[in-house]
Amino acid sequence: MARRFISGESAKNPDDLLVEEPLAIHLDDVQVSSTMRTPGHDFELAAGFCLTEGVLHDAPILGIRYCATGAPVDSDFNVVSVSTGGVAPEPTPRLGSTSSSCGICGADAIDELTSRLELLPSYTPWPPEFLLGLPDLATEQQGLFDVTGASHAAGAFDRDGNLVVLREDIGRHNAVDKVIGHLMLEAAAAGDNSPDCTDLALFVSGRASFEMVQKAWAAGFTALVAVSGPSSLAVETSRRAGLTLVGFARGGNGTIYSPTSAL
Amino acid sequence: MARRFISGESAKNPDDLLVEEPLAIHLDDVQVSSTMRTPGHDFELAAGFCLTEGVLHDAPILGIRYCATGAPVDSDFNVVSVSTGGVAPEPTPRLGSTSSSCGICGADAIDELTSRLELLPSYTPWPPEFLLGLPDLATEQQGLFDVTGASHAAGAFDRDGNLVVLREDIGRHNAVDKVIGHLMLEAAAAGDNSPDCTDLALFVSGRASFEMVQKAWAAGFTALVAVSGPSSLAVETSRRAGLTLVGFARGGNGTIYSPTSAL
Repeated sequence: MARRFISGESAKNPDDLLVEEPLAIHLDDVQVSSTMRTPGHDFELAAGFCLTEGVLHDAPILGIRYCATGAPVDSDFNVVSVSTGGVAPEPTPRLGSTSSSCGICGADAIDELTSRLELLPSYTPWPPEFLLGLPDLATEQQGLFDVTGASHAAGAFDRDGNLVVLREDIGRHNAVDKVIGHLMLEAAAAGDNSPDCTDLALFVSGRASFEMVQKAWAAGFTALVAVSGPSSLAVETSRRAGLTLVGFARGGNGTIYSPTSAL
Repeated sequence: MARRFISGESAKNPDDLLVEEPLAIHLDDVQVSSTMRTPGHDFELAAGFCLTEGVLHDAPILGIRYCATGAPVDSDFNVVSVSTGGVAPEPTPRLGSTSSSCGICGADAIDELTSRLELLPSYTPWPPEFLLGLPDLATEQQGLFDVTGASHAAGAFDRDGNLVVLREDIGRHNAVDKVIGHLMLEAAAAGDNSPDCTDLALFVSGRASFEMVQKAWAAGFTALVAVSGPSSLAVETSRRAGLTLVGFARGGNGTIYSPTSAL
C-alpha cells in the first residue's frame, strides 16, 4: 500500500510497483555480471550482455539455463548461465570495469571499442524525419511504464516503422541488452551466429550515454534514437562507428548528431 | 555541430553537449570502480562512492588526489586515489557486483545491507507536503540540465527547504555520490568522521531503484524524494531501513511508500 497526494488531498491506494531483483550472469561457469533487473526475458538479457560487453567474443552460444540443479527455489531464477562450451576466452576477474591503467580518457575508451568492434558497414541513410517519429510509436507499447512509471524501454524498429521487439526494465542498459538478446536468440533459431541489425534502428527511452552507443554498435544497429540528450562521448563514438545518432526525439522533433554528412 | 528539427524545419546549430569521461577510483592503491561520469567534483564522487558502496567501512579518509605524479596530462585527471593509510580492508577483486553465490534474491540483497548498515535512528517525521515540494526547488538549480538536457541531478535539503548541495552528472548514481561526498568532505573539514544526515532529505531527478535507497541509507539520510517511481525492492528496503520514501514527486503531488506508519 501507499498514500497518494494530489492537489493537497491524500488517499491510501494499492501500489503497482515495478519488480527489481538481482541477476547474476555466468559465462562458462565464471560470473561476468551482477545486475539489478526486472525479472522476465532473462535469457535474452544474459545473451545480450555477453555480446555487448565484449565477453562473448565471437563464440557461439550453445545453451542458456537457470541455476537450478535440484528442486528449484525462487532464487534459482536469479542466476543465468550462458554456455559456449569453453570456446569464449575466460574472463578475468577485475574490480570496476574496463581498465586499471593510470590515465584512461574518453579517447582511450573509444579506441578500446574500435579495436574490438568493426566499423559499421555502409548503409542506406536513415531519413531523420522517420527516426524522429519512432518514440511516439514505442510509447504506445510501454505497458509496464503505464502501470509503474518506473521502467525504461528499448526497442528495435525496421525501415517500415514496424516494432520488431520492445523490452522494459528498471535498468536502461538491461532493456537494451534484452532487445539485443532477443534478436540474437531469433538469429540462432534460424541458424545464424549473429543477428543482422544493419536495417534496424534502436530506440531508447532515456539519455544517449557512451554505454548506449557501445551496445548499439556492438550489436550492429546503424541508428540509435534517444528521447533525451546525448553525451559528448556518445556523439564522438557514434561518429567514429558510423552510427546515426538522434537525441531529444519527441513529438516528431529532435536533433541529429551523427554522421557528420547528415548535418 | 548538430542539426535540429522542429515542426518539419531543420537548422544546423552548435550543440551544448554534456561531457562524459571515464573515472577510475582507487582506494589505497586498489582500483574499486571505473565509472563514466561528468568531470567536476571528482573528489566528492570518489569519497561518496567509497562510503555508499561499503568499501570504506569506517576508515577515515586521510587524503584524496589525482593520479598525476610528474607533469600532468589531461587523462591524469581521470584517476582519483582515496587514501585511508591502509586502514580500510583490502577490497577483493571480483566480477560484477555483490555476490557470486548461487541463488541470491532481493531479500538476500536487503539482508546484506542490513548486516553492514545500522537501522536509521528515530527522527522527526517528515511532512509529506514538504517533501513533495522539494523537486520544484531543485529544478531551478539544475543549470547543466537546462543547457544539455542530458544530466541527472541529486540534492540534499534541510528541514527548512534550503538546498545544502546539488550536483549534476551523466550518471544518476554519480550525482548522488557527489552530494554525499560533498557532505563527507565538509564534515571532515569540521573534524567529524562522517556527516550527520539525520535532518536532511535526498532528492533524485529520476527513478528510486534499490541502489538509490542503498546510497541514501549508507549516508544516513532519513528521507528520499524521487521524481519518478520506485521499484518493489526500493520500497522494501526503505521500510527495513526506516527511511521515508516518496516517489512521483512533481508539482506538489506524489506518493509516499515508507514508513508504513505514514500510509
